[in-house]
Amino acid sequence: MTLKVIIAGPRGKMGSEAVKMVNEDSDFELVACIDRKHKEKNFENPDVQALNIPVFEHAEECFQNIKADLLVDLTIPEVGYEHTKSALQHYIRPVVGTTGFTDEQLNELVSISREMKLGGIIAPNFAIGAVLMMKFSQMTAKYLPDVDIIEKHHDNKLDAPSGTAVKTAEMIQKTREAKKQGHPEEKETIDGARGADHDGMHIHSVRLPGLVAHQEVIFGGPGQTLTIKHDSYNRKSFMDGIRFSLKKAMEMDELVYGLENVL
Amino acid sequence: MTLKVIIAGPRGKMGSEAVKMVNEDSDFELVACIDRKHKEKNFENPDVQALNIPVFEHAEECFQNIKADLLVDLTIPEVGYEHTKSALQHYIRPVVGTTGFTDEQLNELVSISREMKLGGIIAPNFAIGAVLMMKFSQMTAKYLPDVDIIEKHHDNKLDAPSGTAVKTAEMIQKTREAKKQGHPEEKETIDGARGADHDGMHIHSVRLPGLVAHQEVIFGGPGQTLTIKHDSYNRKSFMDGIRFSLKKAMEMDELVYGLENVL
Amino acid sequence: MTLKVIIAGPRGKMGSEAVKMVNEDSDFELVACIDRKHKEKNFENPDVQALNIPVFEHAEECFQNIKADLLVDLTIPEVGYEHTKSALQHYIRPVVGTTGFTDEQLNELVSISREMKLGGIIAPNFAIGAVLMMKFSQMTAKYLPDVDIIEKHHDNKLDAPSGTAVKTAEMIQKTREAKKQGHPEEKETIDGARGADHDGMHIHSVRLPGLVAHQEVIFGGPGQTLTIKHDSYNRKSFMDGIRFSLKKAMEMDELVYGLENVL
Amino acid sequence: MTLKVIIAGPRGKMGSEAVKMVNEDSDFELVACIDRKHKEKNFENPDVQALNIPVFEHAEECFQNIKADLLVDLTIPEVGYEHTKSALQHYIRPVVGTTGFTDEQLNELVSISREMKLGGIIAPNFAIGAVLMMKFSQMTAKYLPDVDIIEKHHDNKLDAPSGTAVKTAEMIQKTREAKKQGHPEEKETIDGARGADHDGMHIHSVRLPGLVAHQEVIFGGPGQTLTIKHDSYNRKSFMDGIRFSLKKAMEMDELVYGLENVL
Repeated sequence: MTLKVIIAGPRGKMGSEAVKMVNEDSDFELVACIDRKHKEKNFENPDVQALNIPVFEHAEECFQNIKADLLVDLTIPEVGYEHTKSALQHYIRPVVGTTGFTDEQLNELVSISREMKLGGIIAPNFAIGAVLMMKFSQMTAKYLPDVDIIEKHHDNKLDAPSGTAVKTAEMIQKTREAKKQGHPEEKETIDGARGADHDGMHIHSVRLPGLVAHQEVIFGGPGQTLTIKHDSYNRKSFMDGIRFSLKKAMEMDELVYGLENVL
Repeated sequence: MTLKVIIAGPRGKMGSEAVKMVNEDSDFELVACIDRKHKEKNFENPDVQALNIPVFEHAEECFQNIKADLLVDLTIPEVGYEHTKSALQHYIRPVVGTTGFTDEQLNELVSISREMKLGGIIAPNFAIGAVLMMKFSQMTAKYLPDVDIIEKHHDNKLDAPSGTAVKTAEMIQKTREAKKQGHPEEKETIDGARGADHDGMHIHSVRLPGLVAHQEVIFGGPGQTLTIKHDSYNRKSFMDGIRFSLKKAMEMDELVYGLENVL
Repeated sequence: MTLKVIIAGPRGKMGSEAVKMVNEDSDFELVACIDRKHKEKNFENPDVQALNIPVFEHAEECFQNIKADLLVDLTIPEVGYEHTKSALQHYIRPVVGTTGFTDEQLNELVSISREMKLGGIIAPNFAIGAVLMMKFSQMTAKYLPDVDIIEKHHDNKLDAPSGTAVKTAEMIQKTREAKKQGHPEEKETIDGARGADHDGMHIHSVRLPGLVAHQEVIFGGPGQTLTIKHDSYNRKSFMDGIRFSLKKAMEMDELVYGLENVL
Repeated sequence: MTLKVIIAGPRGKMGSEAVKMVNEDSDFELVACIDRKHKEKNFENPDVQALNIPVFEHAEECFQNIKADLLVDLTIPEVGYEHTKSALQHYIRPVVGTTGFTDEQLNELVSISREMKLGGIIAPNFAIGAVLMMKFSQMTAKYLPDVDIIEKHHDNKLDAPSGTAVKTAEMIQKTREAKKQGHPEEKETIDGARGADHDGMHIHSVRLPGLVAHQEVIFGGPGQTLTIKHDSYNRKSFMDGIRFSLKKAMEMDELVYGLENVL
């Protein structure tokens, strides 16, 4: 059975990749798009136009007129929240890429999904490789509590460490017995050599032209090291996770936050 | 409470490391050793001698005379099987490093352990990092089925690929949807360039002086790769796994084969 | 002093990157383009159009009408040879990206450049990082003759090993004392495990979705390994080499083949 | 022709490896050792004893009585200086592993070597791989001036960054056009994330159990990165450099400081 999919945010970088992915996968059929500023922005996505499918400016109107199984929402948090809520109320399962919902919003959406017995996934990161890296790091820290994180990005990135590195350290923290790493009398002869300290772990941020987005998490124990490394080369890295989530959402009966919780 | 430990095979390379590890960990107390050729080989392990503990030539005699919680067996398969069986019958939980038991022997030992409600672990590999690498690889293959394995060893290794690489591929095979990787019309202009083919996956064996024992498993999907890499520098890499198993065995009530099944 | 540059082949992938690079570097001024099928192909390069510079269909005509210091030629070999020859005859220094000239053509062009005392560079690869990797590998093999090459590319590449890997092995061969590597009685339990054999060195080709173009050359000696690794993420990697070559050509008084010979 | 070699410092860790290496290489013949505290320390090196060669407590006495081509000195700086001077005066070419000579001492020794027309090498680091890594890094920085250094050591190392990392940065500094790397408005949300700043380059120090001594130097340019990586697993890594230096010293006619200057 082909799954009918609506995409909200098809003009964006992620959204236009999602349009392509859904079109190319024979398990899915793209049945409509939602684009709030469709006329104003003079939206022209050749992939969408070729399909000759309707583009709505209002989600509500879309959901009332179009029969669909799933919504992919790649808009902004304020809008995404309304879309997700409305989708659930129209028996459409949401797959939402956002970091911005409040706990209150999340709880409300999960609660609606349970009442409706509808699956769905809300995730800040759909790169399956990155999510597995964090999950495996968390699992490893129980057995090998000494860990350094090295993240590498292009040199026009403003913040260090990266959000993913901090998220990884936070996830590790939950299973790792707290400890201060390194030699107790360790000394930096140049400030910063040992990197950023997060609960006794060390995070190192490399910034160079040419790099895209890379992270390695290195665990050490007597006589061995285990390294878990993710390299992201472009936005396509998110599509495998969205594809997986669309299929997974059909088997679930409630909304879940975080791709790591359904892998 | 300190756990009383007997070590069988203290003359060997692994065994002598185990003696050191047990001695240095205040959670354990080494109470006896079993060394079949104690007199013949003129056994002199300064770590053992300093403790002034008994060394037995016969396991049975040891278990009858010494009260212990755990046996670490690092001998050879024929002997290890008898030791393990006898230990269980004397209410001693076995932690056994071997690849050589037959399925019949394993089933019998597990069955005895269940009757006695005694935990224990039999494992071909106690390097936690290596075992996690294999486990994570198996988990990843469900989502990213394209995978190459590169293993690197010193150049006096005879066989290629390594046993660990083949074991990893076999574990991946269980969760990976079978597929032939690479371009369908891919062509080797020099034989062997694409490595060994194991069920459509590719394994590459690097042999160089200087290397110890290294393996990386690389998964690729559109726009991203995830790499899981283990570096083993020396025999100490097995000690964390033995330590963990000794403590874990106390909480279990049956014998389990494979460290990956208790992590 | 700003250097006046003509670009031949501005419609191609490399050529359009070169137009951008020359435009953005204040040391250069783009003064004309040569595009053989300018009208037929309805050439529209917004970077070129914005500059309002002439586009010629015939090189000869361009060189007669436009005063320039340098030609960047990113066309095809047959055409490139004529362009290069004609440029030299008009006192224009050529920087040419091609693998296709015959030895006879090369010798003729070098000979003309010497008569005219004009510098210039013809190179199959302008990625400085890749060229340095090969050069350093050649230098290292004198001291550490044991070497494995691992090259990694996306899985729609047809040939294995890659041209760069073979070129690297050929360069290493010139300085490395010939030897058969690995254990003399080494045995493949699965065919191909030890990779492709090139004069006793081993080359391994990894093909996975997500990968772009990567190569590492690993040298081993007792107690140590030295690894030289190049990662190419996109076509921009060639621009640093073209920029360098343009400036370098101004200081030289003959044509040189291979970027490695001017670094 | 076999080269006759004297080793000073055969009791030390490096010295005992050197004894083994010289014994195993048929190009060399070990003819004597110098050990200042031979009787006091009750020196027992089975490799030396098996050879039945003389061990002297005084270098002068050794050089007067034993005809040799080369001296390997692996003692301490004060002693090494006297040994080197005396060796040169007895027509013996010195290969000396030390970081501790003053510029004055070095100049004097070089000046004596020139008068005597005797080759020799004084080096703080005989690991060929590490020395090549530094040399290649210096060469690369001319073309790709953006560079981060990551060094990784076992967690009982006290200082960060390592001496080799600082030495590498100093060597790079000589060829690299000075620049402040990274985004001009880059911001550390946790102190130290961007590592130690050495003249605008960044150095990151990883400390974990299991690690031995590793360093990677990463250069980035648009669309590409070049990485030069050295892994040192044990003291044997110095022997290739000492062997090379012994042979090289025979072809030279003055003393040179730094292995990088003769590679």
